[in-house]
Amino acid sequence: MMADGHHDFERVELLSGATLPRARLAFATCGTLNARRDNAILFPTWFSSTHHKNAWLIGPGKALDPSRHFIVCVDLLGNGLSSSPSNTAAPFDGPRFPAVHILDNVRLQRRLLAERFGIDLLQLVVGRSMGAQTAFQWAASFPSQVGRMFALCGSARTTPHNYAFIDSIKAALQADCRWNGGNYDSSPLAGLRAVGRAYAAWAMSPEYYRSGLHLREADTLDAYLERRWADNFIHSDANDLLAMMRTWQTADIGADPQFGGDWQRALAAIACPAIVMPSRTDQYFPPEDSAQAVAGMPRAELRILDSIWGHRAGSPGSDPADIAAVEAAIAELVDSPPTR
Amino acid sequence: MMADGHHDFERVELLSGATLPRARLAFATCGTLNARRDNAILFPTWFSSTHHKNAWLIGPGKALDPSRHFIVCVDLLGNGLSSSPSNTAAPFDGPRFPAVHILDNVRLQRRLLAERFGIDLLQLVVGRSMGAQTAFQWAASFPSQVGRMFALCGSARTTPHNYAFIDSIKAALQADCRWNGGNYDSSPLAGLRAVGRAYAAWAMSPEYYRSGLHLREADTLDAYLERRWADNFIHSDANDLLAMMRTWQTADIGADPQFGGDWQRALAAIACPAIVMPSRTDQYFPPEDSAQAVAGMPRAELRILDSIWGHRAGSPGSDPADIAAVEAAIAELVDSPPTR
Repeated sequence: MMADGHHDFERVELLSGATLPRARLAFATCGTLNARRDNAILFPTWFSSTHHKNAWLIGPGKALDPSRHFIVCVDLLGNGLSSSPSNTAAPFDGPRFPAVHILDNVRLQRRLLAERFGIDLLQLVVGRSMGAQTAFQWAASFPSQVGRMFALCGSARTTPHNYAFIDSIKAALQADCRWNGGNYDSSPLAGLRAVGRAYAAWAMSPEYYRSGLHLREADTLDAYLERRWADNFIHSDANDLLAMMRTWQTADIGADPQFGGDWQRALAAIACPAIVMPSRTDQYFPPEDSAQAVAGMPRAELRILDSIWGHRAGSPGSDPADIAAVEAAIAELVDSPPTR
Repeated sequence: MMADGHHDFERVELLSGATLPRARLAFATCGTLNARRDNAILFPTWFSSTHHKNAWLIGPGKALDPSRHFIVCVDLLGNGLSSSPSNTAAPFDGPRFPAVHILDNVRLQRRLLAERFGIDLLQLVVGRSMGAQTAFQWAASFPSQVGRMFALCGSARTTPHNYAFIDSIKAALQADCRWNGGNYDSSPLAGLRAVGRAYAAWAMSPEYYRSGLHLREADTLDAYLERRWADNFIHSDANDLLAMMRTWQTADIGADPQFGGDWQRALAAIACPAIVMPSRTDQYFPPEDSAQAVAGMPRAELRILDSIWGHRAGSPGSDPADIAAVEAAIAELVDSPPTR
């Protein structure tokens, strides 16, 4: 269904001041760009994910419909397909890969759209989790190029509590001696498994477990933790995960120099219609933080997903009712009258 | 203020079926047992804590007043003072220490009270976190010996979500190669530090961080995580922590054979007046679970601590208003008319 591609850049200066001599964005497209080049939807990936996992909202009759939209699923830096510690040449390989900000992703994505497709207006930018953080950054930094924004289970900036959570999974991964400061000979599997187990309790809510939904996926709690979660990250490169965690920890739309670090100014710059959809039971992107962001956005609606699936609400394989609510919200946005 | 002591037992059969040839409970007392031996209050410790940390509720004019009460602070098995992997002789030393249930603690505590002090009726059993789990077990298993029960930030059984959290900190600790299956030559410090960092995000609530309270303890978030939390467990023995995690994971008042695994039957057996006080923002002992327990207890009151301090609400060094609410609840219970 999707056409995979990649786009290369040279001398990419990052927000940190570091310069990557070469960088690549991997992506996949779906649908056809119309003659006016105004039916493009950008759909960035989330933490440790790839564009393959974006398929759940894409298809004929779905919220993102290739018969109407030109959908560009773009891989975040650090995910192993776009430039990452694991695929970058020395001297920026492995633990020497520079710090990447969400804004660095957005700037390269913008160049990708312009250079590769001649797109300078997005009908919609849509993302989940770190992808939602990317959508927020797009809408704040390039408001004249974003027609609508949809953010699922994400935030306009990483909160201190969320930061502390990420800090803890970094520590768990790095506790594995095989990690060796990022210069590992073989993958630090015990650390990667500890990250997976941490996700089991963080991603799924107390209510999810209280309802016994985990027992739909395994016979026992131990089996659920082991089979569903422990191996979740073992095929990932540890430095790639750490690079993305760093990006996640520093996410803040106010970090764009035009806002001088002022988060409220950045929120106020988001001119487009937007729906911000947190999950009621998300333990690290809780709805209270979304409410704060929406309060500062001129044309945003807070629409809380009343789900017990925690951070996974609305994601692939979760409750179909939640996914339907996500699709309905996106459809509503996309079909709303043009606003500029 | 406290008089330390210890009491030894021989041939202790555990709920698991294993027998410890010798076991010890460490404890401290405060105040004087009256002639009728009916002014005793039992105050067990919590995870990785010792009786020294129980002092915050004890003192003249405080909820637990040595001028009126005989307060016995007893150390949980596995805490390094009572029998633990780190202080037990072969063949039950280190990772070979047997599984200990909360009920095993209660049974030994009961013998301690009887054999050492001739106490067979507790005016009150009071505990926080795993100490609260111990209080629940006391009140369910020995209802004729417990006059009142107070449980702060604990539960009558460990929920699957709480279990998953503990599972994740076990995995983080064990990811450290120095752990070596529990046969370590030097302490697995990276793993212990990862446990500390996990606690930073789990113990303190999103609201705590959102309010910026962490910046009262350090200049920056990183400094807070590093100084307040990362070293929190580095002086603990890893096998001791793992033994207590196992006790915590298996906590369930219904595990007493007299209840045949029936949690509701065990709750119904709690005949005494009780106040169950969860913290509104506790992420792993959430108030919803306390409400479920209270619904099954004949004479219990659910009194939610409206705190942003998460699991630390009411604990030593937390918000004085929360501690005052804890003290008020205990005082109310203690001063309530005798009920038998």
